[in-house]
Amino acid sequence: MSPIGTAAGRSPIAAGERVLVTGGAGFIGSHLCECLLAQGCEVLALDNLSSGHTQNLAPLLSHPRFRFMRADVCASPPPQAEGVQRIFNLACPASPAQYQRMPVQTVLTSALGVWQMLELAQRSGARLLQASTSEVYGDALQHPQREEDWGHVNPLGPRACYDEGKRCAEAMLLAYARQYGTTVRIARLFNTYGPRLQPGDGRVVSNFIRQALQGEDLTLYGDGHQTRSFCYVDDTVRGLWLLMESGHEGPVNLGNPVECSMRELAERVLAITGSRSRLVHRPLPQDDPRRRRPDIARAAQWLGWRPEIGLDEGLARTVAEFRARAGALRSPSGPT
Amino acid sequence: MSPIGTAAGRSPIAAGERVLVTGGAGFIGSHLCECLLAQGCEVLALDNLSSGHTQNLAPLLSHPRFRFMRADVCASPPPQAEGVQRIFNLACPASPAQYQRMPVQTVLTSALGVWQMLELAQRSGARLLQASTSEVYGDALQHPQREEDWGHVNPLGPRACYDEGKRCAEAMLLAYARQYGTTVRIARLFNTYGPRLQPGDGRVVSNFIRQALQGEDLTLYGDGHQTRSFCYVDDTVRGLWLLMESGHEGPVNLGNPVECSMRELAERVLAITGSRSRLVHRPLPQDDPRRRRPDIARAAQWLGWRPEIGLDEGLARTVAEFRARAGALRSPSGPT
Repeated sequence: MSPIGTAAGRSPIAAGERVLVTGGAGFIGSHLCECLLAQGCEVLALDNLSSGHTQNLAPLLSHPRFRFMRADVCASPPPQAEGVQRIFNLACPASPAQYQRMPVQTVLTSALGVWQMLELAQRSGARLLQASTSEVYGDALQHPQREEDWGHVNPLGPRACYDEGKRCAEAMLLAYARQYGTTVRIARLFNTYGPRLQPGDGRVVSNFIRQALQGEDLTLYGDGHQTRSFCYVDDTVRGLWLLMESGHEGPVNLGNPVECSMRELAERVLAITGSRSRLVHRPLPQDDPRRRRPDIARAAQWLGWRPEIGLDEGLARTVAEFRARAGALRSPSGPT
Repeated sequence: MSPIGTAAGRSPIAAGERVLVTGGAGFIGSHLCECLLAQGCEVLALDNLSSGHTQNLAPLLSHPRFRFMRADVCASPPPQAEGVQRIFNLACPASPAQYQRMPVQTVLTSALGVWQMLELAQRSGARLLQASTSEVYGDALQHPQREEDWGHVNPLGPRACYDEGKRCAEAMLLAYARQYGTTVRIARLFNTYGPRLQPGDGRVVSNFIRQALQGEDLTLYGDGHQTRSFCYVDDTVRGLWLLMESGHEGPVNLGNPVECSMRELAERVLAITGSRSRLVHRPLPQDDPRRRRPDIARAAQWLGWRPEIGLDEGLARTVAEFRARAGALRSPSGPT
């Protein structure tokens, strides 16, 4: 990936500066690590591997400026993390299937993990970017979602471990910023997709692609008219970098404002894969948001950011990588 | 205080059982400790004294079944807390003036304090009751507020450290209950008042009484038409006890459903104190809820609970105690 300019046109992180990425072996985390290495940074990636995978980092493990450590963000950070200049806090189970399987670890990752990173940022004088989420809007009352919206979240439902944890994390970041002057950045990520999604992670894009490639029925929940907005991971990563280096605390929505129904997504995946799978319907899970689309006026104004990769191109790249991975898994030279 | 029957008519806590009260030196906590001692319990009160006061516990300190320890709920609990059978988690700065002065400590008390108590409850096989709050409803969209309402909270505003911390705490309790089977109880307390409120704590009842007794103007924020529902502390404490001993997880609203505007409250305080103070207006603070009234159908049905002390009687008792305290402070035998 080529270096990314900031809104002011230049990258303020000097080559060799030390950056910590928590959740570094995750889907977005691994792409971010790659981007940061391309910028000339020294990158320390932490991950407890509860939902991340070291294969995501395979191309980076031998890089001289890259280091991976298995560690839980909820515990005291390893000594190697002290003195970093930038912290991207991405650690968290992020698909409903994952976080409903481990609600305690999910809510603690926000409550304790963000606290640990805020304390590290304080000690190190680092700038801390928190990967927040469109889920803070819940089943939103306004559409599209703007950063000023207060959100509409069920504090008691099966998604609360994630949604309320992330909302509390935002409040904690702003409390440190107000009381101690900690430098924080808050990005609210809308559904991100791309290469290295795990086929079994329960996210809709990876589900559909896996089902289409394996000739299984594609599962639509409810009538399939609920919408999401899918942002290709390279666009998300560029937005994270630009926000970190901007003068703006946020929150800033980072997502693709092109809205797509689940049915339409399924049909696009079938077209791109050439699969003859059919669509089947299952009941809608509790508290599933009906519509989701970011208003990105703030990102455009503050960061000069907007997504560049359209859904068809992004899906084609993702499908190609899923196919290559499946081929590598089947080939005798692949891992066994 | 005489022993309180449960909904089933008998107290299931055997005399001598060990109960932990965090925030035990606070306003509600100290009344709860008194009630628990009257029930025959052995009571350990923890408090870091950031907003609690040991004077609140003065009548209890020599009680053979009472012990106070100065400790922060966010840290590992003292060894004496291990093996308790019941935990009432009341620790938290609770008035807007307090929690906006220390937003970091406020949000951490919910995020880390509740986690510490959940882990203690797990280790000890204890039942944990969390003092949640009407603030989880925020500037509510429904009126009166029912436990099913999702709430309407600003995650970025000056009250977020308290509101979002308490919402996240509820989500954390339910995550432990679902994943580990921890026995939890959630009480949502609406404005509580009574003897031992601190005259300078920034709550409206204590503000008005202090101002009326000292002949100062009574401060109304905005036009004074915003409402609250005030519950006398004995009623609140009885509700906490009944919920703890019930078979219901909650959340349960505990509050007095009689709604009262700030102007009406000020006029009642003037009448009860006989003060000739005037009313003055100040701008309404950001995100101040306009109306607040609990629907208590659930508490009535599950616990057989409803408030018994009306506002005039409760205010008269509170004013009498404020006067006695002021007299004690002025008398030569009082603390200097």
